[in-house]
Amino acid sequence: MNHVKWSKSEKKIAREAFEKAYERECSYLAGRIREKANQIKKPEEIWELRDFLTEKSKEVDEKYDYRYSVLDFVFARLIKDGWLEYADLEGLTEEKIEQVKSLLRFSESNSDG
Amino acid sequence: MNHVKWSKSEKKIAREAFEKAYERECSYLAGRIREKANQIKKPEEIWELRDFLTEKSKEVDEKYDYRYSVLDFVFARLIKDGWLEYADLEGLTEEKIEQVKSLLRFSESNSDG
Repeated sequence: MNHVKWSKSEKKIAREAFEKAYERECSYLAGRIREKANQIKKPEEIWELRDFLTEKSKEVDEKYDYRYSVLDFVFARLIKDGWLEYADLEGLTEEKIEQVKSLLRFSESNSDG
Repeated sequence: MNHVKWSKSEKKIAREAFEKAYERECSYLAGRIREKANQIKKPEEIWELRDFLTEKSKEVDEKYDYRYSVLDFVFARLIKDGWLEYADLEGLTEEKIEQVKSLLRFSESNSDG
């Protein structure tokens, strides 16, 4: 969406949706960390948790990229992963919503499962 | 202790002491991780736990160096940090125990507190 314009109110909606997804994903992640931490019995499991955190941290860093030029891809992925709903994007132009839907359809048609 | 000889039985004692200290330190570390994990309220605290684990992992890696040439330093540090007791080293030659004690005295005489 490189040349698409974002109004002030759309920017606010986008930012809120983005942050909501981030909060949801981090909250789920915190639950998994707690679970893993409470199950540590052997030293190796400490280092496994370290690896898990390092990996997840990279994944989250890459995924949550708030640049308007890539936001359609970001939103499509967040919807696909279940951290965002179309309802969170209400107020964006039809063009933007359609672009997100197209990306999701494309992704689904190319997925294995 | 570069040119000091280690008998078979001493190697066994050293290895067991080393592993006992490692188990004790990791068990304490697991407790701290559990505590931190159970207190996560905000996303930032996930990344703080990641940093904590990365740092501790490096620290443990550096500290637990099982080479006979540096084992006196390793044991002195583990005693200083409270993960090992002299009783765990029982059976090593007097020379080796004395070397560990000298290192500890040296370290204490040079510490700030």
